[in-house]
Amino acid sequence: MSVTAAAGFRAAGVAAGLRATGGADVALVVNDGPLDSAAAVFTSNRAKANPVLWSQQAIAGGTARAVILNAGGANCFTGAFGFQTTHRTAERVAERLGIGAVDVQVCSTGLIGVGDEAFRAGVLRGVDLAADALAPGDDAGLAAAQAIMTTDSRPKQAVVAADGFTVGGMAKGAGMLAPGLATMLVVLTTDAEVEADLLDRALRAATRVTFDRLDSDGCMSTNDTVLLLASGASGIRPDEAAITAAVTAVCDDLARQLHGDAEGASHDIAIEVRHAASEDDAVVVARSVARSNLFKAAIFGNDPNWGRVLAAIGTTDASFDPYAVDVHFNGVRVCHAGEPDRPREEVDLSPRATSIVIDLFAGDATATVRTNDLTHDYVHENSAYAS
Amino acid sequence: MSVTAAAGFRAAGVAAGLRATGGADVALVVNDGPLDSAAAVFTSNRAKANPVLWSQQAIAGGTARAVILNAGGANCFTGAFGFQTTHRTAERVAERLGIGAVDVQVCSTGLIGVGDEAFRAGVLRGVDLAADALAPGDDAGLAAAQAIMTTDSRPKQAVVAADGFTVGGMAKGAGMLAPGLATMLVVLTTDAEVEADLLDRALRAATRVTFDRLDSDGCMSTNDTVLLLASGASGIRPDEAAITAAVTAVCDDLARQLHGDAEGASHDIAIEVRHAASEDDAVVVARSVARSNLFKAAIFGNDPNWGRVLAAIGTTDASFDPYAVDVHFNGVRVCHAGEPDRPREEVDLSPRATSIVIDLFAGDATATVRTNDLTHDYVHENSAYAS
Repeated sequence: MSVTAAAGFRAAGVAAGLRATGGADVALVVNDGPLDSAAAVFTSNRAKANPVLWSQQAIAGGTARAVILNAGGANCFTGAFGFQTTHRTAERVAERLGIGAVDVQVCSTGLIGVGDEAFRAGVLRGVDLAADALAPGDDAGLAAAQAIMTTDSRPKQAVVAADGFTVGGMAKGAGMLAPGLATMLVVLTTDAEVEADLLDRALRAATRVTFDRLDSDGCMSTNDTVLLLASGASGIRPDEAAITAAVTAVCDDLARQLHGDAEGASHDIAIEVRHAASEDDAVVVARSVARSNLFKAAIFGNDPNWGRVLAAIGTTDASFDPYAVDVHFNGVRVCHAGEPDRPREEVDLSPRATSIVIDLFAGDATATVRTNDLTHDYVHENSAYAS
Repeated sequence: MSVTAAAGFRAAGVAAGLRATGGADVALVVNDGPLDSAAAVFTSNRAKANPVLWSQQAIAGGTARAVILNAGGANCFTGAFGFQTTHRTAERVAERLGIGAVDVQVCSTGLIGVGDEAFRAGVLRGVDLAADALAPGDDAGLAAAQAIMTTDSRPKQAVVAADGFTVGGMAKGAGMLAPGLATMLVVLTTDAEVEADLLDRALRAATRVTFDRLDSDGCMSTNDTVLLLASGASGIRPDEAAITAAVTAVCDDLARQLHGDAEGASHDIAIEVRHAASEDDAVVVARSVARSNLFKAAIFGNDPNWGRVLAAIGTTDASFDPYAVDVHFNGVRVCHAGEPDRPREEVDLSPRATSIVIDLFAGDATATVRTNDLTHDYVHENSAYAS
């Protein structure tokens, strides 16, 4: 069901005292091979946390044997001391597993600026506890998924059984979900026999149409990481289409779970743009709506305010005529050719799942961006909780 | 004190029944000359309301003699009927004042998609009432400023007495304040003797550093208009520096009033970027913070969350080293050279006026962008109130 679903992987989730509230906070995932191919996508934010700075160098050769993850501190903007903490963490994992430090990917999540002596000691203690607890199977996978939760209300796991091989994964993230990823840590595993180049192409193809189109609140984290590890333990060598399809399916499943657990949200909104001149145009137009606080607040109030949709898309430079657009809210065409159409009273926005369809009549491309409404709970969680 | 402070102007504000709540909703400002120079800046949104489509054509020659403004309906995305309404409004004003329709600027504010027969009848009734009520002096100016309020809690007026001439103005706008203006209607008047070309340069120079740097909620309206009318009644011909300074001062005053009255805000935040490589860089960096919902929610919670500032500025492509930045909250340097500095407990965010200073150490340019916090009241006003 999880990061341990594919053959060749063990995992652990342990409590190392990094969380004020107690509870599991360090996870470890180990690839026992025979293969150690790996691919990764990191935040495109120029402000990158120390674990990201480490991991993107360590994975440059296309291999990794273990991933250590912690909640309770992002280890971002913590200076040279913070980078040394990441390095020592990788070394400790390597020591315990009998591998090299560069075989270890490091992921952290929590408050920026947290990375002092106590944090370092906690993470290193977590490495020891996790190394002792490593196990195959669903329970170990679930323990790992639980250990990386922050404001998540539930662990997020997914698995796809493909033709002779399996892809599984876990994710955390409930806010700061934005383009080029989110405060989102994702570890994907597969027992397919796939070399690093192909793994990289498959992962990028998958994230482009899943995590990259999840835009919960327009904010981009400093720690985002999506890792894909291949053990080759199934002995099956899928072609590019097959591995891409399986990885995309797991990413899509996890992205929907992130979407449905966004901080404080009361609506899960899918904004579909149809008949755009290009896929890029479709994404830009959909994202402009996903970024409009006025639109998002209206959805919270169950108000089918199509004027705010048009005001948002008018700020883009996509190819379309703003006065020749149709807008549908939950299947009701409230705006046709840039004028009022069906009365807003016909729209029922009470369900959590919300569909916005924008038809640009400008071409053949389509894309969907997922976002959430702007609610009192979002404001509460992000004003009362320092994260 | 207002749009009637400069010699040569009359105004009126009347109740024409466009507001569900009653109250004044149509304003008229008339330039009695001798000069009729005029300049304007309109929303850069491609989705432009009918009055904007009309006004930008009508003012192309650099002249205008009257401005008619209404609340209670934006007349945007109301099709050919809506454009005819704007045209008839201009014709009715022209008829009553004995001028040409192209001498009349039209501004509307309210809900997008509203512009039916009843709306048209109301606006035309408003024209007649306002034409009858036209008067010089402060009371008439205040009546006009009150008639254009929507969610504004108070009328906004400003005046600057310069060397022999006067610049006055009124504004409305409390939400959707964003780059390239806001749902913001501004009428500025002066009795200086200034030709249209110079008036245009002065207005653009003024709005660039005032209204364009007010970014309350990242949303851009379809109806934004800033008009500047010159009567020449003072007989004084200021040079470019003098008229630009006076117009900028009035715009700055009005922009601060808009900032202080933003929907639901509990903090007025000034984000100053210092030592940027260019002024554009400074604005881009400051705006990235002004657009971060996580940052804005933290300020609402009195949380000096500098990590959210760095996460926001890291998404820009401005020239600076993210790990060599200082951040000050209300005068306390909480981040130095990309690492934690003074403890966050030293920062007092309880005052409404909030200062964020970001030092990029990358050059000599500076800019300040003004925004507001993200509050429960913002969510409430924009979910419960269809606008």
